[in-house]
Amino acid sequence: MEPKELMGYYKMKVEENLKEFFKEKKKGLEHWSSREACEILEEYTLRGGKRIRAILMIVGYKMMGGKNDEIIKASSSLELIQSYLLIHDDIMDESDLRRGKDTVHKIYEKKHLKNGFGGRPIRFGESMAIIAGDLANAYAMEILSSSDFPAELKVKAIHKLNEIIEYTGYGQIIDIYSGALEEFKEEDLLLLHKYKTARYTIEGPLALGIILAGKEPEGIENYAIPVGIAFQLQDDILGLFGSEEGIGKPVTSDLAEGKKTLLIIKALENGSEEDRKIIMQALGNPAVTYEQLEKVREIVRRTGSLDYSKNLAKKMVEEAKDYLKGIEVEDEEMRDFLLWLADYMISRSY
Amino acid sequence: MEPKELMGYYKMKVEENLKEFFKEKKKGLEHWSSREACEILEEYTLRGGKRIRAILMIVGYKMMGGKNDEIIKASSSLELIQSYLLIHDDIMDESDLRRGKDTVHKIYEKKHLKNGFGGRPIRFGESMAIIAGDLANAYAMEILSSSDFPAELKVKAIHKLNEIIEYTGYGQIIDIYSGALEEFKEEDLLLLHKYKTARYTIEGPLALGIILAGKEPEGIENYAIPVGIAFQLQDDILGLFGSEEGIGKPVTSDLAEGKKTLLIIKALENGSEEDRKIIMQALGNPAVTYEQLEKVREIVRRTGSLDYSKNLAKKMVEEAKDYLKGIEVEDEEMRDFLLWLADYMISRSY
Repeated sequence: MEPKELMGYYKMKVEENLKEFFKEKKKGLEHWSSREACEILEEYTLRGGKRIRAILMIVGYKMMGGKNDEIIKASSSLELIQSYLLIHDDIMDESDLRRGKDTVHKIYEKKHLKNGFGGRPIRFGESMAIIAGDLANAYAMEILSSSDFPAELKVKAIHKLNEIIEYTGYGQIIDIYSGALEEFKEEDLLLLHKYKTARYTIEGPLALGIILAGKEPEGIENYAIPVGIAFQLQDDILGLFGSEEGIGKPVTSDLAEGKKTLLIIKALENGSEEDRKIIMQALGNPAVTYEQLEKVREIVRRTGSLDYSKNLAKKMVEEAKDYLKGIEVEDEEMRDFLLWLADYMISRSY
Repeated sequence: MEPKELMGYYKMKVEENLKEFFKEKKKGLEHWSSREACEILEEYTLRGGKRIRAILMIVGYKMMGGKNDEIIKASSSLELIQSYLLIHDDIMDESDLRRGKDTVHKIYEKKHLKNGFGGRPIRFGESMAIIAGDLANAYAMEILSSSDFPAELKVKAIHKLNEIIEYTGYGQIIDIYSGALEEFKEEDLLLLHKYKTARYTIEGPLALGIILAGKEPEGIENYAIPVGIAFQLQDDILGLFGSEEGIGKPVTSDLAEGKKTLLIIKALENGSEEDRKIIMQALGNPAVTYEQLEKVREIVRRTGSLDYSKNLAKKMVEEAKDYLKGIEVEDEEMRDFLLWLADYMISRSY
């Protein structure tokens, strides 16, 4: 299969599995409010996404010789973990929308308003969303622990998955601090990307697949961490230079959110006093204009900050590919997919 | 050992284990903000509590013939799950204090205020507390999955633990709805107690111990569910009729919080129009007076609602004990402990 075809195929398989899981889950629930929460989680989880984490888990498994179709079920647990983390993130960011639809806390808040419940709608919404997120995590652990793999391997996978979640939490803490602290260094930022993107999105899923194939996952980080950081760097580039259609959100939103990306950090370092002033006026300004955005883009280009990020991303992708070419695998198609994915990370426009 | 001595002994063992876990965990953390979160979790988890869930897991294990001291480590995971759920509950209830000290969101909020961070202190505090809770859950799963038991049994235990957390979530949802909806029925209340107290506090921990001992946990619910409900009924009785010293909070606080306990539900059902008015004026009223409390107490007594709860609790305890006396166990001391515990649930004054 072509890489994009492979992604589409496994995306469909994972989503079929999730639908089946929710169908069974709902059958066993006694109380209307449990069913309601379960339905909200189902809709939220299935409303979109590339399923990249589940797919990487499947690819890691097959690349190392795994043959059991239960990997589809096991990998779908990662999509529930994704819901868990996103639902909680949405509360922290006070986001109203996720993939163009109401976030979970917003769904419950609107329910409260519409029905005239007692108490405050926002508190009600956030409380329910905290619980809904926690439920998604429990579902994920249930799926993984009940998948048909040898118990020894499942225990290793569950341990690894919780380590991944743990480090994503540390990354999220750094992220929250980045909005609260004046000073935010390049090394903090790289650690944030390592925890929140590289480990969680790339290395963790691949490692989980390799573990379930009965192999040692240690080496794969030499591919996964640089690819993950390149992915994040490209995300930040698209967040500042991309098109609204491509990234699916206003092109000013990264600036408005005050994201201290490497692009911004390097431009602040190398820019003039005047440049710094322009950037700081735009950064974290919810009313930032398109004109301000254009000025920031110009500074990021002129100071060499854009090239710095692009070159760093390219270097990381090359490093990752070199490593991957040198290891022993049992399925060349999967290796080729990962080589393609590394390049795709920095060539994609969305 | 006497029952109280046994409780004290295992409480100490579990706490030793938690201290050791946090000591090791902190060693491996790279970033100051990860260590900070870990230290906050350590202090929060260790600041008190009877460790009843961990102790019940140990008792269930030993009663069914388990001999491995690793059960102490495995059971300490339940205390981290307790932190996970309490930290999130504290956010939902907007509680400032837990066991006489700042809740996690309050700790972070104060840090924000003291250091003059950017953004809003309350949002910062709640965001950090959501993550800190999530970390505690990941720690718990890591501990259980790395404890020295056969992998087959660990997988079963992890699956069960996540089911317990899932149902606690459903209970919490009912609890939040109970504050938001006008109508709250006895059957909703009993389901809430079954999920949040009986399954989570009593049945789940015992079942986990039995699973790790290699036995089937199914029957134990015939003991655990009634004891759990009796525990909750007694909690509600103490919440209305107890002393401030005994329960460690103002005697008016259950009323002020608007808790729709069985005592209140039955009094509303059987009281006069005037009685109902008095109760509704006190319920959920943050400024409820001691005089109002006395009137509500009188109504709850006069309508037979207090006796109804007491008799129900007594009946449940007898049912539980009858079941437990009839099963085969390998350690009589542990059975005696559970028989004592059932009686203790309704005789305790705190």
